[in-house]
Amino acid sequence: MKRVAIALLGCGTVGSGFVELVERERSRIRSRFAVDLRITSILVRDLGKPRPPVDPRLLTTSAIEAIDAGADVVVELIGGVHSAGAYVRRALRHGAHVVTANKALLATSGSALLSLAAEQGVSIGFEASVCGCIPIVQVLREGLAGDAIEALGGVVNGTCNYILTRMEQGAGFEEALREAQQRGFAEADPSLDLDGTDAAQKMTILGQIAFGETVVRSRVRGIDALSAADIRSAQHRGAALRLVARAERVPGGVAIDVAPRELPAGHPFASVAAEENAVMIRGRAIGELLLRGKGAGAMPTAAAVLSDVLGTVRGRAGIPTAA
Amino acid sequence: MKRVAIALLGCGTVGSGFVELVERERSRIRSRFAVDLRITSILVRDLGKPRPPVDPRLLTTSAIEAIDAGADVVVELIGGVHSAGAYVRRALRHGAHVVTANKALLATSGSALLSLAAEQGVSIGFEASVCGCIPIVQVLREGLAGDAIEALGGVVNGTCNYILTRMEQGAGFEEALREAQQRGFAEADPSLDLDGTDAAQKMTILGQIAFGETVVRSRVRGIDALSAADIRSAQHRGAALRLVARAERVPGGVAIDVAPRELPAGHPFASVAAEENAVMIRGRAIGELLLRGKGAGAMPTAAAVLSDVLGTVRGRAGIPTAA
Repeated sequence: MKRVAIALLGCGTVGSGFVELVERERSRIRSRFAVDLRITSILVRDLGKPRPPVDPRLLTTSAIEAIDAGADVVVELIGGVHSAGAYVRRALRHGAHVVTANKALLATSGSALLSLAAEQGVSIGFEASVCGCIPIVQVLREGLAGDAIEALGGVVNGTCNYILTRMEQGAGFEEALREAQQRGFAEADPSLDLDGTDAAQKMTILGQIAFGETVVRSRVRGIDALSAADIRSAQHRGAALRLVARAERVPGGVAIDVAPRELPAGHPFASVAAEENAVMIRGRAIGELLLRGKGAGAMPTAAAVLSDVLGTVRGRAGIPTAA
Repeated sequence: MKRVAIALLGCGTVGSGFVELVERERSRIRSRFAVDLRITSILVRDLGKPRPPVDPRLLTTSAIEAIDAGADVVVELIGGVHSAGAYVRRALRHGAHVVTANKALLATSGSALLSLAAEQGVSIGFEASVCGCIPIVQVLREGLAGDAIEALGGVVNGTCNYILTRMEQGAGFEEALREAQQRGFAEADPSLDLDGTDAAQKMTILGQIAFGETVVRSRVRGIDALSAADIRSAQHRGAALRLVARAERVPGGVAIDVAPRELPAGHPFASVAAEENAVMIRGRAIGELLLRGKGAGAMPTAAAVLSDVLGTVRGRAGIPTAA
C-alpha cells in the first residue's frame, strides 16, 4: 500500500467536492490501486467558515505551513495567478507533485512551471483545468499520440453554454447568468466567461498539447453581444447558437478562434446542453473523435483532480514532460 | 533519442495500415517524444504477396525468428487465439512489451497474460482491441480513476452498425454485410459480429476494467434476426435500431447485456453511423461522459496500436497492472 499525503490549497466549491470525493472513494482506491490517500492539510482564508465534510483540524491559513508539511501531492484550487503561482513553485521546489485546475495560471506560466517540475523530477497534472471531467488532456497527450492531430473544436465554457441553453428555454440573460453563478459553474469574474477569454485560454492549452506549438494568432468573441432575439431567430431556423472554440495549425504555430456559431440541429455541438462541454478532435488517421461530458461543477471537476492525483502518484509518464 | 525496435506479427488490413502510419508519423514522433521507431521484422504467411508500403526484406514466415530477434515491442495483429496466444507468451517471456488488437485473446486469457507481463516487468497494451481509435481503455483505467463508474453502454460493433445504417438507407442485409467486409470492418468470421459475440467480448473487457470485477451474467442477442421490415418500422416511428451493449455492476460481479434497441432520434447513440462506435460512461461524480469515433478500419485501429506502442515505451503506468 502506497501512502500518499495531499495538501489542499483552497476549499471552495471544487475543494469541498474534492474532500468529499476522497472520503467517498478512499476504500475503492485502496483496493483497486493499492494507494492510500490522506488529506493532511487544507489552506483556507477563513478558519471560522463552516465546511460540513471537512475535518477542522486540517485547516490552516498559512500557505507555508500547508506546503512545507511534506505532502506528496499539492492540489492547488485557489485560482488566480499570483499567489497560486508562488504556491505551485514552492510545492515543486519542495519536490511535491502538483495537481491544479487553474487554467489562467497554465495559460500565463505553464511552460515555466512544467520546466521547473521536470528539473525537480515531479509532475504537474492539469486535466481539471480544461473541460471538467472530460479527460481531454490525457486523450490528446497519450491516447492519440500515434496520430497527427489536424484540428480541434469545442464547446468548452460551461457558463456560456448554460446561459445559451437557458435563454433557448426563455430565461433572460441576467437570470441565466445568476443561475450559473449559484450553481458554481461561473468563474469568479464572469466577464472572463462571457467575453470568450476562458474558452480561448482552454483552447490555447489544448491546441499547444495537440500541435506541440505555441499560439501565434487568436481571434476571440464571446456571447456578451448576443441578444434574446439572436437566440430566437436561430431557433426559428431549427438551429442552436453555441460558443465554439477552435484551434488549428497554421504556418508558425497554432491559431485560436472563439465565436458564437449557429449550428444546424444535427451538429454534434448543437445538443450540448447546460454545463456540458464537448470537444471534437480531427486526426489524420482517426478521422473525427468526439468527447462530451460535464465541463463544470464541483464533483465532475473534483473527479478530474482526483484522477490526476492518482495518475501522478502511479507515475504516469504523460504528465511531466512539456507539450 | 530512445530507439525502439518493433516486431510486427501479421500484415493484413490493420498491419499494413500500421506500417504506413509508423512511416508517416516517424519524424513527428521523434521530435515530440524523442522516440525513434523502427519496424525490424514482420511475420506473414505468404512472402510472395505484394504489400506496397512494406519493405520485403523485413518479412519472415518464422514467428520464432520475428519474436526472438530482440524487439522492444511485439505488435500482435494476426488475430485468433491459439497461435496468437503462444506468440504473445513467447514475446512476454523474452521481456518484450506487447501491443495487441486481439479482443478474443484478451477475452479468453487476458488475466493470465497480464499476470505473466507483470512477472516479466513488461506491459500489454490492448487499446486497439476495443472501439478502434476511441481511447476508452485508457479513459476508464486512468482518466476516470478518481470516480466510481456505475454503468457503461455502447455501440461497439462497427460491422453491425454499418449494416444497420446501410439498411436504413435501403440496402439489403447481404449487400451491406459484403460492403462491410470489403471495407475491412468485419471480423474474419462475420457471424461473431452478427450474433453479438464481438460486442459482448468488447463489453466484457470494458466492464472488467470499469468495475474491477469479472462477468457473472451475460445475455447476448445480435442483429442476425432483424429484418428490413424491423428497420423500416423503427424509422417510421422516427427512431433508429442500434446494437447496444451494456455492462453494469450486479451482486458478485458484472452483468453484460447485448441486444438491438430502438432509440429515439435524440438519443446519443441514434446518430452513430456506419463504422462509428460510441461509449457512454456513467460515473457517480462525473455524470455521463460520451466518447464517439471510428470503431473499425485500418488507419483508426492502427493509430490506436501506435498510441499504445508509444504509451508502452514511454512507461505509462496504467497498462501493466491487472484490471
